[in-house]
Amino acid sequence: MAARSSSALRLAFVAATTQAARAAKAALEQRYGAVSPADAEVIVALGGDGLMLQTLHRYLSRRTPIFGMNLGTVGFLMNQYRAPGLTARIRNARRVTLTPLRMIATNGSRKHEAIAINEVSLLRSSRQTARIAVAIDGQMRIPDLYCDGALVATPAGSTAYNLSAHGPILPLGAGLLALTPINAFRPRRWRGALLPRDSKVEFTILDHKKRPVAAAADSVEIANVVKVEVTDASDLELTLLFDPEHDLEERILKEQFAP
Amino acid sequence: MAARSSSALRLAFVAATTQAARAAKAALEQRYGAVSPADAEVIVALGGDGLMLQTLHRYLSRRTPIFGMNLGTVGFLMNQYRAPGLTARIRNARRVTLTPLRMIATNGSRKHEAIAINEVSLLRSSRQTARIAVAIDGQMRIPDLYCDGALVATPAGSTAYNLSAHGPILPLGAGLLALTPINAFRPRRWRGALLPRDSKVEFTILDHKKRPVAAAADSVEIANVVKVEVTDASDLELTLLFDPEHDLEERILKEQFAP
Amino acid sequence: MAARSSSALRLAFVAATTQAARAAKAALEQRYGAVSPADAEVIVALGGDGLMLQTLHRYLSRRTPIFGMNLGTVGFLMNQYRAPGLTARIRNARRVTLTPLRMIATNGSRKHEAIAINEVSLLRSSRQTARIAVAIDGQMRIPDLYCDGALVATPAGSTAYNLSAHGPILPLGAGLLALTPINAFRPRRWRGALLPRDSKVEFTILDHKKRPVAAAADSVEIANVVKVEVTDASDLELTLLFDPEHDLEERILKEQFAP
Amino acid sequence: MAARSSSALRLAFVAATTQAARAAKAALEQRYGAVSPADAEVIVALGGDGLMLQTLHRYLSRRTPIFGMNLGTVGFLMNQYRAPGLTARIRNARRVTLTPLRMIATNGSRKHEAIAINEVSLLRSSRQTARIAVAIDGQMRIPDLYCDGALVATPAGSTAYNLSAHGPILPLGAGLLALTPINAFRPRRWRGALLPRDSKVEFTILDHKKRPVAAAADSVEIANVVKVEVTDASDLELTLLFDPEHDLEERILKEQFAP
Repeated sequence: MAARSSSALRLAFVAATTQAARAAKAALEQRYGAVSPADAEVIVALGGDGLMLQTLHRYLSRRTPIFGMNLGTVGFLMNQYRAPGLTARIRNARRVTLTPLRMIATNGSRKHEAIAINEVSLLRSSRQTARIAVAIDGQMRIPDLYCDGALVATPAGSTAYNLSAHGPILPLGAGLLALTPINAFRPRRWRGALLPRDSKVEFTILDHKKRPVAAAADSVEIANVVKVEVTDASDLELTLLFDPEHDLEERILKEQFAP
Repeated sequence: MAARSSSALRLAFVAATTQAARAAKAALEQRYGAVSPADAEVIVALGGDGLMLQTLHRYLSRRTPIFGMNLGTVGFLMNQYRAPGLTARIRNARRVTLTPLRMIATNGSRKHEAIAINEVSLLRSSRQTARIAVAIDGQMRIPDLYCDGALVATPAGSTAYNLSAHGPILPLGAGLLALTPINAFRPRRWRGALLPRDSKVEFTILDHKKRPVAAAADSVEIANVVKVEVTDASDLELTLLFDPEHDLEERILKEQFAP
Repeated sequence: MAARSSSALRLAFVAATTQAARAAKAALEQRYGAVSPADAEVIVALGGDGLMLQTLHRYLSRRTPIFGMNLGTVGFLMNQYRAPGLTARIRNARRVTLTPLRMIATNGSRKHEAIAINEVSLLRSSRQTARIAVAIDGQMRIPDLYCDGALVATPAGSTAYNLSAHGPILPLGAGLLALTPINAFRPRRWRGALLPRDSKVEFTILDHKKRPVAAAADSVEIANVVKVEVTDASDLELTLLFDPEHDLEERILKEQFAP
Repeated sequence: MAARSSSALRLAFVAATTQAARAAKAALEQRYGAVSPADAEVIVALGGDGLMLQTLHRYLSRRTPIFGMNLGTVGFLMNQYRAPGLTARIRNARRVTLTPLRMIATNGSRKHEAIAINEVSLLRSSRQTARIAVAIDGQMRIPDLYCDGALVATPAGSTAYNLSAHGPILPLGAGLLALTPINAFRPRRWRGALLPRDSKVEFTILDHKKRPVAAAADSVEIANVVKVEVTDASDLELTLLFDPEHDLEERILKEQFAP
């Protein structure tokens, strides 16, 4: 449509707290104009993966696509930073849709719901080894896991905490979740499991008074949980935009071949 | 349909070479009648996983469903052996469909095609470390892998050789292949990759005269290969029958929680 | 020597807080007589490995040999429980000498010294990934380890936390320490190192205000450390007594062949 | 002593078959003079680790110290190549003494003895999974290991085949051997064991007619073995010379911190 010039794309900019990110935000707003995130067609995130996760969480309900440009130390989810040509890049970008996880964590008699894009993780919060029962789709699979903790990662999150905990990297379209123990003590050599994406994972914290455990959906933490349920949040969809030459699928694939 | 009694199911029986398997075959043929595999509606395989793989390979083109009963040492793909009630079990069985891999292996100027249900594997056939270039979908990923070999496993095969080579177990419906190095020497700590099911994996054997490599599709081996291509044989479909209480999907899931 | 009857061995008994352990203590004191630990030639510890570690720590300076009998859930360091024949078993027992580790942990401007029989471990105490510099004998080896933590284990402790963190089991006489990362995030695939027993390992916590870390010598924990030094406490020696048929060296060896 | 000029050191030179190595040999012989290996005080090996192993094997009985200079692709055991100042470097070099392994391999009724500096390895030589019984010091530890093979590595060899097979790197002075399975299929997750240096490891090949196995001491291979014994060859000692700034102990230590 001729009436719609490429400069008409309504952009909002969000930036990490670093000097470089703030300066870039000011310059880009000057250059491309800016609307509030609520009115934006696309949100441009300036910083590292931390900022991207934060931005995704913040605008979750609006489903506004997000185009990230890397001005941080880790930029797995980000495109390269370049000031010129932004509108064209965004118009030509490849869309990647991520489905996050929903965590329902019970501590005391309260239930807390939180969304995780990377992973839901449980970690002991005292010197005491955690003891956790793990059920999948209502069936008990590990009745008493002695460990530091456990996590459930999405394919997008499989290169993050999951990888550190010795879990496998999953291609984006895998239709799988990685269930990975964090330093399993018993069963001694349990390496975790890959589960169909629509699985429901239920962790029950055993002996939770003596052995307190905290649960986290990405960086939101709930202390002293007694039960944690993890399911696909298939009602939510996150859209990230990537330059065609560096899309996330390719990045995750490449990550598997990194030395 | 009243005219069709349950005893009318046309069965063929195949057995491993062990005493127990042959005796069972004779007794079951007596009890249920038997037709030739070419005329059978269902083939009943008596033995272990080795016999099952053999039978699947043998009747690949006919697509006849196969019901295995375990009379071997490893019976991952087999149901429990019980002589009575076989017809009813087969009628109530759950169907599991497996897509095999197609290997095209070149040695000298000849191309050999073979089908693999579990995995295509390459292994050095001399004292010399193998050197293999690995490309995925036409893109070079590991230009010079020093190793004993490498393999590509289906989900069904992920609990077999792949597991021994430290690869991950894949749920049946994963839509993935496991590419797993066999004792990688360089890059030193490469653990392999999970690939979308429709990937084309291409192995090129470097320095193949000094460093000979054999390739195998399950147990069919081709010596002195110079190039091996692995793709989904999506034109072929294998149907296995399982008692509902012990289907293969559940077995593979369970295997991930085995101590 | 006729004057020294076997019943003359001066024993002290210590017990875990469980019913079973206390009851056994009472019965054994009745049967064999008991002196205070300060006067004992041998201390008999009744419980599991937790109690044994506690007892070893408690009577460290006295160097009194300890004979453990298993009345707990984990009894790696314990002999089988049997009430009769205790004096003879102790007289015939094989001595195993363990050298512990000395941890010097600095938090703020204070230094805390503690002894570890199993391991010195560092673990992040917030959601923030820990960043730790690791130097060996004054030489920087990993300048910036992103991780959940790290540990240094003795051979005796190599089957404990070290094993959960994917470190190798070390035979008792190995003359080695295991330096094992806990969920290393960068360098991504660092698996740890085996170090000569007399190495000095120095951990410096980077960015410690934002990324707090706690250090523990076995179960004694120091919060908010900025620096942790680990050396052999070769001035201390712990003596454990084992029935000849089940000595610790054999147990650790056997543990390596456990399924 | 004035009478003994530095040029008086009797050197022999051996070279790999590459152009570069031969040319270096000719130039160095010209520069430093050369005697036959039998008359040499020090043998200078020019090439990569392959040549070094070959040279060590060849002059095993003479115990002549060997100084290697790297002109190959892998030079773990080699010093840097530099033509000038060789005599002074050799005089100042640090001596590292290695104890090799002795393999006694039985095939048919014959016994073959061979020495291994890096490792003794067993590998299946057909498509059939190997089945091997593993005994340590006369005690059966793994009665039936289903695998591609197994190996016993010295500390010096721990960074070679052992590392590829997922075994741990051992410091030179460790006093240990690494027993490492090659793709263990059953017991499924057996990761191997670290054994005291003076252990005797005995492999018995089960079902050896159907499942042939070859054994190798470094690169010397014996086909169709039925039994393989591995012990310390403590009667033999190999002396390698290293520039002080790059000695082997430091290299192996460093290797453990390589990314």
